[in-house]
Amino acid sequence: MEFDSNSAGEFAFIASLAAKAAKAPEALGLADDGAVLWIGDGRKLVLVADMLQAGIHAMPNASPAQIACKALRTNLSDLAAMGAEPAFYLSTICWPKGTDEAQKQDLIQALAEDQKRFDVVLIGGDTIGGSTPFTISITMLGWASGPLLRRAGAQIGDDIWVSGTIGDGVLGLEVAQGKASPAEDTDARFLRKRYEYPEPRLALGVKLAALVHCAIDISDGLIADATHLANAAEACLCLDPDRVPLSDAARHWLETEADQDGAMEKLMAGGDDYELLFTAPEEKRTQVQKISKDIGLPLRRIGGVIKGQGVRLGRGGIPVRKPGKTGFTHF
Amino acid sequence: MEFDSNSAGEFAFIASLAAKAAKAPEALGLADDGAVLWIGDGRKLVLVADMLQAGIHAMPNASPAQIACKALRTNLSDLAAMGAEPAFYLSTICWPKGTDEAQKQDLIQALAEDQKRFDVVLIGGDTIGGSTPFTISITMLGWASGPLLRRAGAQIGDDIWVSGTIGDGVLGLEVAQGKASPAEDTDARFLRKRYEYPEPRLALGVKLAALVHCAIDISDGLIADATHLANAAEACLCLDPDRVPLSDAARHWLETEADQDGAMEKLMAGGDDYELLFTAPEEKRTQVQKISKDIGLPLRRIGGVIKGQGVRLGRGGIPVRKPGKTGFTHF
Repeated sequence: MEFDSNSAGEFAFIASLAAKAAKAPEALGLADDGAVLWIGDGRKLVLVADMLQAGIHAMPNASPAQIACKALRTNLSDLAAMGAEPAFYLSTICWPKGTDEAQKQDLIQALAEDQKRFDVVLIGGDTIGGSTPFTISITMLGWASGPLLRRAGAQIGDDIWVSGTIGDGVLGLEVAQGKASPAEDTDARFLRKRYEYPEPRLALGVKLAALVHCAIDISDGLIADATHLANAAEACLCLDPDRVPLSDAARHWLETEADQDGAMEKLMAGGDDYELLFTAPEEKRTQVQKISKDIGLPLRRIGGVIKGQGVRLGRGGIPVRKPGKTGFTHF
Repeated sequence: MEFDSNSAGEFAFIASLAAKAAKAPEALGLADDGAVLWIGDGRKLVLVADMLQAGIHAMPNASPAQIACKALRTNLSDLAAMGAEPAFYLSTICWPKGTDEAQKQDLIQALAEDQKRFDVVLIGGDTIGGSTPFTISITMLGWASGPLLRRAGAQIGDDIWVSGTIGDGVLGLEVAQGKASPAEDTDARFLRKRYEYPEPRLALGVKLAALVHCAIDISDGLIADATHLANAAEACLCLDPDRVPLSDAARHWLETEADQDGAMEKLMAGGDDYELLFTAPEEKRTQVQKISKDIGLPLRRIGGVIKGQGVRLGRGGIPVRKPGKTGFTHF
């Protein structure tokens, strides 16, 4: 679940309404990014839900098609973070009154393509003709046959791994906002696509489930989500900024920045990367690298779990300092 | 599913995105108000989703707590219409930025009470700090062990039955809007409560599932939802306005109206009653009446299924005329 933890009210929302679920007769458990329903034959049904709105999770003028795809993909990323395989979803949509038919058709086309790509089907929902802005909520259901990935479980001495590249999301947002203007058009397109059409790491999640100690998808930013893993384990995640993987586009941007450390931290603090962050014992390195090769997705060791709490930046497991920026603020 | 059928786009939304579900390996079917997932042990998991927004499904100044309860209850009503027992739900909420903490606490308190009342638990979701108006989406899951109630199945000669009373929803809306001012305060309170806090007919739905030919919950209005049953059966539902059950409050309002037929039709066309409408063969009358007695909910025969199509108003199964108003328009 991703209830906003900033307010006491939201916390109470979980505590008072969700806590009872542990007692549910259907053997239903609350997991980190979703709920789990144990089915008789050993399979687990995993449920996650996310709401996206134009102007919050996408540019105010973003197309409904793009926002819908992002909603589908962020929900898929939540399933990936739990090691579940997606199966089907329900979608509720608020179309601002007066939305033209072409925009609706574009959304249908875009979701149909993503459905095919991620092998999921729409099974129900609701559309309302309401107020601006465009708003979409998706409940995604998936199956897990083996163990589930959880946020808790990092152990002292674990390697910290991350998939793909970090910081593209925040740079893509700045490109969309006109705040960043890469010299290369290909960089601008790449970064914007990373922000608008995140790539849920589904194949990775399923393969990691039986192997690693814990995982989370990076939606709030590498540092903030590493903090979630640290808090769940009551340990410290020591991240080495020099080892954090960057795309060519992010590297090009970084080269133009005067304050290299600050710029690197900005990439590590930015949200919307939707990569997987996980920890695993040293003896699993070969197996993790084999997964990387099998699915064709780079996985990089970026630090180690040490005694302490929260996130520190350092090298070789020796913490040097606290990160300056720890959160992600929606624009 | 309750996709808005007014636009070609919405229709395509179902056709292009949902139709594939019939092929899903999980033996998943699309039902009328939701989706059904067959679980190995013979149980069926039923899934429905509805989105509600202030200004559309509630007064623009309605409290988030009231809208959330209505969202919970309209989803429960969808389950009731399928004969399923509710179990748990996921909720996504858009809090307009600047919403004060007291409103959030009120919502938590109200949902906690409704959870207890209807024996459901929150298992996941998402809250965002977004734009006005307050918007909530709920995905509700329930269990069905026996047959499911469906919209299709009305047969020529069936009795048409309805639970509770009809027309309170539309009058309650007018009270909330200040358009109707009942002489009695108790009437005003009763009607407004009927509009704001609908009573899902869950016990009824479960008991009807193995007994009757078809059912629907009255959200769009008696006439519009009767039309859905008629269309699904390719038959005509002939309703007798004189037999349509009214609350004391609705009767008091009716007595003050000059055009009795027009006023009665207004009650039959109004939405938001959330009663169950169903058809059953004549030989089931005793059993239906026993259910009514067992659960303490009035059930009234209000017409019969005849050859033809759509809805007609008449007496004793003899159609007299078409209804003048067939739909429900949100304000």
